[in-house]
Amino acid sequence: MTRLTLAIDAMGGDFGPCVTVPAAMQALASDPQLHLLLVGDPDTLTSLLAKADSALRERLQIIPAESVIASDARPAQAIRHSRGSSMRVALELVKEGQADACVSAGNTGALMGLAKLMLGSLNGIERPALMTVLPNVRAGKTVLLDLGANVNSDSAMLVQFAIMGAVMAEEVLAISRPRVALLNIGQEETKGLETIRDAAGILRDAPEINYIGYLEGNELLTGKTDVLVCDGFIGNVTLKTMEGVVRVFLSLLQSPEGKKRAWWLSLLGRLLKKRLAKRFGHLNPDQYNGACLLGLRKTVVKSHGGASQRAFVAAIEQAEQAVRRQLPERIAARLETVLPKSD
Amino acid sequence: MTRLTLAIDAMGGDFGPCVTVPAAMQALASDPQLHLLLVGDPDTLTSLLAKADSALRERLQIIPAESVIASDARPAQAIRHSRGSSMRVALELVKEGQADACVSAGNTGALMGLAKLMLGSLNGIERPALMTVLPNVRAGKTVLLDLGANVNSDSAMLVQFAIMGAVMAEEVLAISRPRVALLNIGQEETKGLETIRDAAGILRDAPEINYIGYLEGNELLTGKTDVLVCDGFIGNVTLKTMEGVVRVFLSLLQSPEGKKRAWWLSLLGRLLKKRLAKRFGHLNPDQYNGACLLGLRKTVVKSHGGASQRAFVAAIEQAEQAVRRQLPERIAARLETVLPKSD
Repeated sequence: MTRLTLAIDAMGGDFGPCVTVPAAMQALASDPQLHLLLVGDPDTLTSLLAKADSALRERLQIIPAESVIASDARPAQAIRHSRGSSMRVALELVKEGQADACVSAGNTGALMGLAKLMLGSLNGIERPALMTVLPNVRAGKTVLLDLGANVNSDSAMLVQFAIMGAVMAEEVLAISRPRVALLNIGQEETKGLETIRDAAGILRDAPEINYIGYLEGNELLTGKTDVLVCDGFIGNVTLKTMEGVVRVFLSLLQSPEGKKRAWWLSLLGRLLKKRLAKRFGHLNPDQYNGACLLGLRKTVVKSHGGASQRAFVAAIEQAEQAVRRQLPERIAARLETVLPKSD
Repeated sequence: MTRLTLAIDAMGGDFGPCVTVPAAMQALASDPQLHLLLVGDPDTLTSLLAKADSALRERLQIIPAESVIASDARPAQAIRHSRGSSMRVALELVKEGQADACVSAGNTGALMGLAKLMLGSLNGIERPALMTVLPNVRAGKTVLLDLGANVNSDSAMLVQFAIMGAVMAEEVLAISRPRVALLNIGQEETKGLETIRDAAGILRDAPEINYIGYLEGNELLTGKTDVLVCDGFIGNVTLKTMEGVVRVFLSLLQSPEGKKRAWWLSLLGRLLKKRLAKRFGHLNPDQYNGACLLGLRKTVVKSHGGASQRAFVAAIEQAEQAVRRQLPERIAARLETVLPKSD
């Protein structure tokens, strides 16, 4: 593997540098080819790095940024006043070729808008979409998009999401003729919103897409499709609902049961629970945090605002993977053959 | 408890009488005050009842209906041609006072439209909403609506849902000043769809509603609110996502692990897993199937189309409870004090 440089918006997210700095060190420790540009307030970052391993520290550089975009800021306004913010500086590093990709846990709308503005979207893509790869019970993977890059999507946008998702599944997950479904509230053709029905009509007639119809929310983890497409509002609610339920289960697994038992029984119980928790672990949100903004000319990964250190490391790893697999380039190449030519 | 009569659309749902008939017998067995009117094709129902317990059979009457509304029919068209269908006959029995409430696993849109047409909605309610009561991790309950009675809801409708949900939580779950939240994709005021933001503005200024703001999908089971309000498309996707994840967990808990172990270890493992499954059981969709159509003058309960026998029994029990607690009457009384008077 060759050297790879990522720009990290160190100030974004609910916990800012308290999470991003230790996560950065952890990521550097696990990949000797990784270099990081940590963008944010130099004083804060320097003090947090004071006790860092000096060997790892050599592959890390602090890039000063004087402000942070608030997570509750209106995207349009945030973008207007974004100059000098950690998110924007991180994206500039990608634009100028100093970094291969950018990772941020900051304001989703601002990241989406700024990334589109500064890096540009691929030909044929109106609006980029947030995509994640979920594990499913068939031991496979399901590509889910959009997760909230757009709150309202028309049918043309849903079709573009479907194409990008299919390319992702084919090129990165190595699934040939990936199945593509639309998330809806019923499997019958007459069900749901008009935009979804219109998108279904277009996808049904597109020979390059292996469209299999509607799927409902309960099929999210069943592996019935390789790509599941929905608008950003629905995708965000769906993913968060799933994560909430998984967390509840994992916490129930780990909580004590209250009843006193023989020590050897308790020990055995704890061992079994630990094994179960491990088995469910692949559904743990911390392990697949990080959504790729698909449809841009470069890789941008959005982490959960509330990501833990471990979760932020997962987001960094997703960016590494996307760069190494040349995700934007592969999508661009496939889009050229799939999308109608505009003259 | 006094005698109670329910009309059951015996032909609705994915499995029709194969599920509804045994479920009806089970419900009769567990409540000696319950009487059922089983609406559907007399031949089919009679043959399925051939071996039924004759004592229970006395509290059950077959009401003939010549047709069934298909689950994939367009609601408007289905309603136009609904005369003589099992769903419509069941609703007529409620309208004429022969039954106290109706339970159907049939076409949601048709049930919603027909119920409104035949039973009428309460003063001040534009469109009824599908509501369910979810268990949460604080050992409390959360009222969730709308679950798909309406695919598009404007802000006024969301506000009406909020009022109905609050009344439900107060009158039936005995929660004083129930907390009401809107489901959104961020907790900040600027986030999400315009209709949701507008509804938030109205709810914030309504003194009779204890509005606490936005909650995201991951808070569905955390008990941070007593009432969670969303439009029907979102609610449907959210609920089904939750159910899908719960099913995955329960199936993982029950599946074998593949590794050979000493017999006593396996036995112990099975026992512990069984106990865990029981502990998670309150989240099992089968145990709370059945969504009440709130905002009608009478009680109508919608079961999942794919409900199992056990799940359909849960829907029947929900209808019994709604009738015994006089849900529509209580909501009507509270709406009169809460809603603005129209002259």
